[in-house]
Amino acid sequence: MANLANFNLDETIAVLTRTPATLNAQLHGLPAIWVQGNEGKDTWSACDIVGHLIVGERTDWMPRARIILASGKQRAFDPFDRFAQAKESQGKTLDQLLEEFARLRGENLSALQALNLQPEDFKREGKHPALGVVTLSELLATWAIHDLTHLHQLSRVMAYQYRDTVGPWSAFLGVLHCDGHSAP
Amino acid sequence: MANLANFNLDETIAVLTRTPATLNAQLHGLPAIWVQGNEGKDTWSACDIVGHLIVGERTDWMPRARIILASGKQRAFDPFDRFAQAKESQGKTLDQLLEEFARLRGENLSALQALNLQPEDFKREGKHPALGVVTLSELLATWAIHDLTHLHQLSRVMAYQYRDTVGPWSAFLGVLHCDGHSAP
Repeated sequence: MANLANFNLDETIAVLTRTPATLNAQLHGLPAIWVQGNEGKDTWSACDIVGHLIVGERTDWMPRARIILASGKQRAFDPFDRFAQAKESQGKTLDQLLEEFARLRGENLSALQALNLQPEDFKREGKHPALGVVTLSELLATWAIHDLTHLHQLSRVMAYQYRDTVGPWSAFLGVLHCDGHSAP
Repeated sequence: MANLANFNLDETIAVLTRTPATLNAQLHGLPAIWVQGNEGKDTWSACDIVGHLIVGERTDWMPRARIILASGKQRAFDPFDRFAQAKESQGKTLDQLLEEFARLRGENLSALQALNLQPEDFKREGKHPALGVVTLSELLATWAIHDLTHLHQLSRVMAYQYRDTVGPWSAFLGVLHCDGHSAP
């Protein structure tokens, strides 16, 4: 069953296009407390988040779109390694990571536009290793909402660094009460 | 009891300085679905969020800092009207709101720097109408974390517009499982 509810390629690309500049505006030149701080053992800092987005550009979104277009449900996607950013980011500064993410995202959006997808393509199906049958429209929509999930996480990780510093106002600041809602 | 845990004025200003450009990068020119969509009746769109940040610049943060410096605990802050943005935003485009927020934030940060606050000032106390005694450092820290609360909300409100469009990936996208954690 294709789920095209609300899907629109231009609107999806509008979100995807803006994420590198949004991250750059929020993070470039920020003091270490905000970009290196995490939420405790085995949690992510701003640097880790940008590294994870880079891995997605390299291994997830467009590679999976190409698998759907080439093989449909015959070939399951390769699983996405949600912890590959540690290796990917090693020895790089945040500014280098931001630049790399912007470059890869630009290349991937150019490649997406070059596919010249038509409305009937969005219903084409692929096979997710854990979720089963998915469509190309769901994959492209998820690419954009995955960006928003990590912008959501980024504001939470930054806020965590001042969780005690705000004193009694903590009660009014929703971001300090978010538990992350991570996938199991 | 003054709570200076982690408070640093320059680090706080570093966050406050970046919010207008972050919002501009994320929102300028975005299709209507993302900037006008909300999460249902009596919830906020991206436009409402920027309007709320404008009201805060006008009536909350620097006015309260000035009350602390002038009157200490003798004069309680005026309550913050969390719904004043409907009037404030009426008839304005999102771009006008983004520009107005950037201008007001710039003016307020200039005024903050001009106060030339010293470490002992950060312990000065004021009276919040609901929370009781708070300090200047807590107020300034809250100004920055309030920005992050609304960036957190913004990514959630945008993601909500594609809550069905992502299909089964919804299970993996934490932002779609955030209930907002609003203050009571």
